[in-house]
Amino acid sequence: MLDRIKSLVEAKNVKELRSITEDMNEADIADAVEELEPEGRVILFRALSRDMAAEVFAYLSPDTKEALVSQLTTPELGRIVDELFLDDAADLVEELPLDVVKRILESASPDTRRGINQLLQYQEDSAGSIMTTEYISLRPDMNVEESFRHIREVGTDKETLYTCYVTDPKGILIGVVTVRTMLLSKYEDKIGDIMTDTNLISVNTNDDREIVTELFQKYDFIAIPVVDSEKHLVGIVTVDDAMEVLEEESTEDFHKMAAMLPMDEPYLDMGIAELARKRIIWLMVLMISATLSGSILNHYQSVFAALPALIASIPMLMDTGGNAGSQSSTLVIRGIAVGELRLRDALKVLFKEIRVSLMVGGGLAVVNFVYKYAMSGDFLLSLTVGISLFATVIFAQTIGGMLPLLAKSLGFDPALMAAPIVTTIVDAGSLTMYFMVASHIMTI
Amino acid sequence: MLDRIKSLVEAKNVKELRSITEDMNEADIADAVEELEPEGRVILFRALSRDMAAEVFAYLSPDTKEALVSQLTTPELGRIVDELFLDDAADLVEELPLDVVKRILESASPDTRRGINQLLQYQEDSAGSIMTTEYISLRPDMNVEESFRHIREVGTDKETLYTCYVTDPKGILIGVVTVRTMLLSKYEDKIGDIMTDTNLISVNTNDDREIVTELFQKYDFIAIPVVDSEKHLVGIVTVDDAMEVLEEESTEDFHKMAAMLPMDEPYLDMGIAELARKRIIWLMVLMISATLSGSILNHYQSVFAALPALIASIPMLMDTGGNAGSQSSTLVIRGIAVGELRLRDALKVLFKEIRVSLMVGGGLAVVNFVYKYAMSGDFLLSLTVGISLFATVIFAQTIGGMLPLLAKSLGFDPALMAAPIVTTIVDAGSLTMYFMVASHIMTI
Repeated sequence: MLDRIKSLVEAKNVKELRSITEDMNEADIADAVEELEPEGRVILFRALSRDMAAEVFAYLSPDTKEALVSQLTTPELGRIVDELFLDDAADLVEELPLDVVKRILESASPDTRRGINQLLQYQEDSAGSIMTTEYISLRPDMNVEESFRHIREVGTDKETLYTCYVTDPKGILIGVVTVRTMLLSKYEDKIGDIMTDTNLISVNTNDDREIVTELFQKYDFIAIPVVDSEKHLVGIVTVDDAMEVLEEESTEDFHKMAAMLPMDEPYLDMGIAELARKRIIWLMVLMISATLSGSILNHYQSVFAALPALIASIPMLMDTGGNAGSQSSTLVIRGIAVGELRLRDALKVLFKEIRVSLMVGGGLAVVNFVYKYAMSGDFLLSLTVGISLFATVIFAQTIGGMLPLLAKSLGFDPALMAAPIVTTIVDAGSLTMYFMVASHIMTI
Repeated sequence: MLDRIKSLVEAKNVKELRSITEDMNEADIADAVEELEPEGRVILFRALSRDMAAEVFAYLSPDTKEALVSQLTTPELGRIVDELFLDDAADLVEELPLDVVKRILESASPDTRRGINQLLQYQEDSAGSIMTTEYISLRPDMNVEESFRHIREVGTDKETLYTCYVTDPKGILIGVVTVRTMLLSKYEDKIGDIMTDTNLISVNTNDDREIVTELFQKYDFIAIPVVDSEKHLVGIVTVDDAMEVLEEESTEDFHKMAAMLPMDEPYLDMGIAELARKRIIWLMVLMISATLSGSILNHYQSVFAALPALIASIPMLMDTGGNAGSQSSTLVIRGIAVGELRLRDALKVLFKEIRVSLMVGGGLAVVNFVYKYAMSGDFLLSLTVGISLFATVIFAQTIGGMLPLLAKSLGFDPALMAAPIVTTIVDAGSLTMYFMVASHIMTI
């Protein structure tokens, strides 16, 4: 299909291009646009119908959008922006450079411009910032047939029309009615009688967007209404946007847990300096903290001067401690993120981690002891390493399980208490224990 | 509200319980059920309407479901299972013990039983295993009004009725039409004329469920049809189920990246032995691999016998190398998971990681050199550590960036090439470099 489009673009066969794109999905056309040379993109784009052009545009990467905006004429651009769903238009304005944004806002109709500006006022990561102001609102005294007629009249522009919102004359949200309910009711039934009007689920514009995704996961909704502080309905968040947020939040957690500042741009689109900056800050903090472990080694210099064979097990102890700790912290951080673990579960987690780590630490220590003894034939050294390993795993998994909960109770992000921090703390602890055990057992 | 329910349950006021639960959301009632004592649960449950009971049941935790099943009579149980959406019923059968399952299947109607058994045949993690067989199918020669009437008649049981599927007499999927399109069309329009019948997006029952979530992320659909190898429509996957899969897949990646076997049960529900088993396997493998670093230290014993001050920087080098490597591997693994990075980007990633690591490594090395020199006053030692750190970061980030892509090209899961494995490899490399640099600079 892509080859077909490429050859039609080369032949500038606009008519044929329009006819084959008519039946294609917008996301697939956007893929094709990305693959073309800049000149080809404009040719393909101009061949699209007006609706289609806007929908395809919303799927493009920021770079391609920017390039395309500079190639289109102002009226062409205005038509696209006016056809975009308002939240997509607002996203566009947020991600493009200022001079490009100016051209976009100038070319949009006054209505669109007002809508975009309103959406841009909400704080990043708030429910307001991911909502759309395009939804269907009904009055309680309309009946199902009138409602369907209303949906037919105003519906083409609305991002979702399956859930309709019922408001009073002041615009206050008083009920919700799905097209499903309407389809399953009689045409003459009044909206006020069939709508759900108790325990309405809604979020405030300033609520964190994570609250929205939690609601979507708890209730299987297609959209959730957003109200202002006086309960006026101001927008809705649709499930496809919530799904995107869910993915972004997971990505942010992955980044934080690997000791990076979170990034919301794709890897390939990010500049070298920006990538380096996101990485170096935590590495620096952790590098300086790791000197603590170094000074512990310094402190015990006499021990490995007397027994250099002790040094060979340091990497194994440090690595196993780090890995064991990151297992526990990952389980707890993820448990908190998906809502399975709360602060009140802290004691359960502590108790569980102690018991699990006794088993894990015991298993590893026995294997290590046997292996080490078979290799070295040194019973006391093997015993020292085995006991230290046992203590390290218990220490690492208890610390790893508790730190994220501690962070949460102090109001910090649990994801920051992941592998890197746990490793730094566990290193210091495991090395200290190692030398203490060695001093006792090997009577240095 | 919960207190209200508790006191009504204690008073066994079934009538009032039914009236207040009628307006509540099922997910909230399920929360209340979880909070009650076993006897109270049955009282509340019996007060629910038949529909409501099934919907609430689907939201309960596996443990509560199992307990409740043992308390309900067989006819009560049968009514609930028959009212459940088929995919929920199949999930129920999968997660409960065999003797409970027998009771459930015996109490269900023959139709339900057949449906459950069919769904259970599909492989875990396949599209078939997450689909529901309840969807609305239309014929191309029906018009919009007839379709609405059909939806009214059969619709109450269907999990989603917003996307209807058009099949030919043999049951082969020939088109898709949304209620949105129908609402925006005239009542007398023929389905065959308004349906989408080209570039239909569908998955095969045996496709991996990740393919389904990728399609949901690419196209903003509410449901995706599932067909068998002869293109017969056999089910649909709805967006709420896809969202759950997305969350589960992220959780699995978190687990794998922290060197655990993936778990799909909540942390608090898992047994100690099971948790220990999921953790110990990779720890064991990594512990044994870490002895490689130990033997490198052994090999260079003479170096730190001559210069014991070198030992103090080993934890810092190992930790920074591990952290730097896990940053790169996390970015690449996540990039692959969300579809931003592909195998053909390998060279771009390599080139980018080299440049970023030059900056990050350079910055860290300079700070470390200055700090170390200020502390120790030993120029050659500080230079040795600084240069080794620089080389370690470059090595770590290049390896960290490339390993996940290598794993993917060999058909393995990139998530397995995360922090733990990268750390083990980087440790050996960084220690070797450290001693080589030390031998040259400090002329030992």
